[in-house]
Amino acid sequence: MISLDTILAAHDRIRPHIHHTPVLTNHTIDEQTGASLFFKCENFQKIGAFKARGGLNAVLQVADSREGKAIATHSSGNHAQAVAYAARQVAMPAYIVMPRTAPQVKKEAVRGYGAEVVECEPTQAAREAGVQAVMAQTGAVLVHPYDDDRVIAGQATAAVELIADYNNPPFDLILTPVGGGGLLSGTALATHYLSPTTRVIGCEPAGAADAVLSFESGRLESAPYIDTIADGLTARLSERTLGYIRQHVSQILTVPDADIVAAMRLVWERMKIIIEPSCAVPLAVVLRYPDLFRGKKIGIILTGGNVDLGKLPF
Amino acid sequence: MISLDTILAAHDRIRPHIHHTPVLTNHTIDEQTGASLFFKCENFQKIGAFKARGGLNAVLQVADSREGKAIATHSSGNHAQAVAYAARQVAMPAYIVMPRTAPQVKKEAVRGYGAEVVECEPTQAAREAGVQAVMAQTGAVLVHPYDDDRVIAGQATAAVELIADYNNPPFDLILTPVGGGGLLSGTALATHYLSPTTRVIGCEPAGAADAVLSFESGRLESAPYIDTIADGLTARLSERTLGYIRQHVSQILTVPDADIVAAMRLVWERMKIIIEPSCAVPLAVVLRYPDLFRGKKIGIILTGGNVDLGKLPF
Repeated sequence: MISLDTILAAHDRIRPHIHHTPVLTNHTIDEQTGASLFFKCENFQKIGAFKARGGLNAVLQVADSREGKAIATHSSGNHAQAVAYAARQVAMPAYIVMPRTAPQVKKEAVRGYGAEVVECEPTQAAREAGVQAVMAQTGAVLVHPYDDDRVIAGQATAAVELIADYNNPPFDLILTPVGGGGLLSGTALATHYLSPTTRVIGCEPAGAADAVLSFESGRLESAPYIDTIADGLTARLSERTLGYIRQHVSQILTVPDADIVAAMRLVWERMKIIIEPSCAVPLAVVLRYPDLFRGKKIGIILTGGNVDLGKLPF
Repeated sequence: MISLDTILAAHDRIRPHIHHTPVLTNHTIDEQTGASLFFKCENFQKIGAFKARGGLNAVLQVADSREGKAIATHSSGNHAQAVAYAARQVAMPAYIVMPRTAPQVKKEAVRGYGAEVVECEPTQAAREAGVQAVMAQTGAVLVHPYDDDRVIAGQATAAVELIADYNNPPFDLILTPVGGGGLLSGTALATHYLSPTTRVIGCEPAGAADAVLSFESGRLESAPYIDTIADGLTARLSERTLGYIRQHVSQILTVPDADIVAAMRLVWERMKIIIEPSCAVPLAVVLRYPDLFRGKKIGIILTGGNVDLGKLPF
């Protein structure tokens, strides 16, 4: 179990390298939902997503302990940039295994932070084999995107800031998206310690609905199908994250892609900020199930703003 | 001449109805320009643009003085929404004359604030005749988009906040876009009073370059041609705004549309905020003339974020 001290130590550790991100509110969206929504803007975080927090907390500890000479991970998303950014902060080499089919712009972003992109075939097996090969060749240490307590403790720090800044009166609810479950686990743990009356809800695309099933059965389930615009949320829970989530999360709710795109558009048009599709899932949940949220004070972690402007869904 | 007291009174008058908008900085854009840029985010302002300030300052005074029973203006842009929003705050009827060819979404936005849209043919003459007719029929008072000291004093309050919040050490420069010149006039006046060592620069699209010519000749000149994506900046200066600008602005610089689109994209991708093309002109100027800005502390008024997501330039 990750203790409160571990989470607060993570915050102290990463603080020099991250933004204490702002919290925005919006009158129109509050009127539309009948709720009082506080959006924690991790889209303004370093590398454009909360993943900088977990990546840094792990990489800084690897660097301190000298347990490895380099960092390795596999990701085609924000975790890739997070690890690359974190490794640069401590001047360690980083090797990011990415499918050769990943968008060129994502490979360039990783290289822009000074990391090396190692291309592999676009299968889960090839990605894992690629990481193993890199680790064997370079002495690199793996920093997994979510199945790692250091990463989870880092992701927890977004909720630490949200609660420190805006928890008077306490939030009724805090909502995050759920993919592999690192952010949801960290948020639920931080909230459990720092605001025990606040309930935490995970928000999942209907097109990647493994977490809701696993949450109900208590075992790792597969999603019935994977087909969603929220491409940051297709990973499966691990035993570790399922454990934290079963213990400290109240509920998981799912929404279809049309709702996710509509929520994303609402934020762009009304709040004038850029969020990626995965980031819009909690607001989509609030809009789809209004009776659950009306009259409530709700914190929402806006997870990231890395979108391909050439491929917008509207 | 608009006094400092007039500007500060405007700020007190409108404060209950506006946001004190945040100021953002961006490490990557600072590195790219070699300057230290402070972005005053009026894209987060009520109605999504600084125009709420000037519209409110005029409308609140009309309501107080009972000089008219309603408000009228002609605009197909942000001033239309600003006047509609301001009139609703004081429960006065507002009539907005708009070309019948204006986008439906803009008409709906104005109606959404409770104002009446009066359609006219898409010519300057028809717009002015339309406003005259509305005023005669309804007893409405005109609130011009920029040729009005009350509007200019309202626009000045964005710089008042920027200087109050971030002027230690003083800005070397403050940059705004220039169309009709209301914002540039107000910014230059506020800066003259509150930070006299700071120079103010106006930033204009090459495809609507009347202000740079008028600034040089001292007379109202026409733009050689009107063709720009910055559709909020096609209006001409008035004698009034030219006078303020000649007295208190250091320089006007122009940029082509390709630069404006590139600057807009840079802000979207790096700052994760939505700005409209007109709003990107000052950053485009900084990027085009780097030698003028390197090493300087620069305030930039980000003027608005009202874009049609169905018609993006990238």
